[in-house]
Amino acid sequence: MGDNRPIGIFDSGVGGLTVVREVFKLMPEEQIIYFGDTARVPYGTKSERVVEKFALQDILFLLSKNVKMVVAACHTVSSMVLDRLIQGFHLPVLGVVEPGVKSALERSKNKRIGIIGTKGTIESKAYERKLKDKDRDVYVVSCPCPLFVPLAEEGWLEQSVTYQIAEIYLSPLREEKIDTLILGCTHYPLLKGVIKKVIGYDVSIIDSAEETAKIIRKRLMAFGMERKSEEACDHKFFVSDIPHQFQEIGSRFLGMKLKNISRVDIESTGITPMECGLR
Amino acid sequence: MGDNRPIGIFDSGVGGLTVVREVFKLMPEEQIIYFGDTARVPYGTKSERVVEKFALQDILFLLSKNVKMVVAACHTVSSMVLDRLIQGFHLPVLGVVEPGVKSALERSKNKRIGIIGTKGTIESKAYERKLKDKDRDVYVVSCPCPLFVPLAEEGWLEQSVTYQIAEIYLSPLREEKIDTLILGCTHYPLLKGVIKKVIGYDVSIIDSAEETAKIIRKRLMAFGMERKSEEACDHKFFVSDIPHQFQEIGSRFLGMKLKNISRVDIESTGITPMECGLR
Repeated sequence: MGDNRPIGIFDSGVGGLTVVREVFKLMPEEQIIYFGDTARVPYGTKSERVVEKFALQDILFLLSKNVKMVVAACHTVSSMVLDRLIQGFHLPVLGVVEPGVKSALERSKNKRIGIIGTKGTIESKAYERKLKDKDRDVYVVSCPCPLFVPLAEEGWLEQSVTYQIAEIYLSPLREEKIDTLILGCTHYPLLKGVIKKVIGYDVSIIDSAEETAKIIRKRLMAFGMERKSEEACDHKFFVSDIPHQFQEIGSRFLGMKLKNISRVDIESTGITPMECGLR
Repeated sequence: MGDNRPIGIFDSGVGGLTVVREVFKLMPEEQIIYFGDTARVPYGTKSERVVEKFALQDILFLLSKNVKMVVAACHTVSSMVLDRLIQGFHLPVLGVVEPGVKSALERSKNKRIGIIGTKGTIESKAYERKLKDKDRDVYVVSCPCPLFVPLAEEGWLEQSVTYQIAEIYLSPLREEKIDTLILGCTHYPLLKGVIKKVIGYDVSIIDSAEETAKIIRKRLMAFGMERKSEEACDHKFFVSDIPHQFQEIGSRFLGMKLKNISRVDIESTGITPMECGLR
């Protein structure tokens, strides 16, 4: 059997390409359609109302590409609005929060778990709620790190100021004696070296991109939806804006040369929920 | 005579409130209608095509509020697309680039001028072009400072890392022996203390917000368009999103409590160029 349709993955910008990279590693046979909302990035500083509207437009666009599954590779969307949004769709819609939560609970021994992310992600308390839903005894401490995204995009991955800023953000978490830290933002894996050094090598770092790829594979296998075609497939990357240096920054996140990029006007694709077969 | 209609001021977000603050100081009798595109902020990392589309929507929205003048209090808009956009309107449209250029040329003695701003502003080379148009002999050196905006929004105005980051960005400008530095981004006045200390007190700092307010007054007086009404007026602030802590951050930029805020859906105001009396 199987299902040869592509997997749709979206994010507010280039960050979600870290999830695509992990899917390529784990399931090289699958075809990917990616959408990055680079014209309206970032989502992390915006209100729930606006994030919900943008996320719905992003999902509808992917549905118009006949995908078999939608992955919100955006922590802001996954933590703020995904639980509400997935109700309406008749295909699997996954986020990046659940996989990180699951893995953190498996790995933590002292049940003291830290979370770092954008303001939107942290203030939504989605991670905290999901962790406590699954284990009432877990102690959660979280911290927004707004400067990590511009540092990652600037490419200052090992600079002295990067260590100092990490020290400011992470030392309160270290003092709380966490043994597990969830990287609650797709940009943060680029700073993993600095983060590990500052928080301490005895703390397990949960990379949500890796964990999400594992869950995607599990879900596809559970439903018999893996791609079975022997034909080579073309991955397609859509963005709402192609700014200067986009290919360079995008390739850094994807871990390989980014090609097949097209621009779409996400505000006026004119795709309605009905046309996408929404319930 | 005079003209009692309000002045329209827009920016990609809260930064333009530094211009509003200067207008309040210089022309307390004028009424302001402000629009901040907080749902799509920032513009500085986006392409010319997208910035032009957003700026046109912002201007049309202000025109629908019956303003007598439009001020683009956004360096990205002013430097990337304003020269093209202002052609079509039958009312004065001002930007924040010209006023800074004018003032820098008046103040510089050695004709070595520095400019700092977002990537979009610096890569557009608009400042450089305008400075050289007015004085062929001027030597211009510029540098994008992407971390200054998140530092200002984080409120890290005097931290040790802020000094170090300023040192990384500004030391090449200092070595070029500039005697004048244009702050080419509405957020940067908040970091003026750090910038002055790092670049040296002998360098004149050009605050575009202050210079823009002066030009607005000059233009209103030249056309006899000052507000003459004795009635008190209500300023109005429109934004495309009201995220968490918006009032707090906005008030920091405005220098007083921000009130009378309304949310508008800028993507679907449905205002056409025709309805706004565009030529």
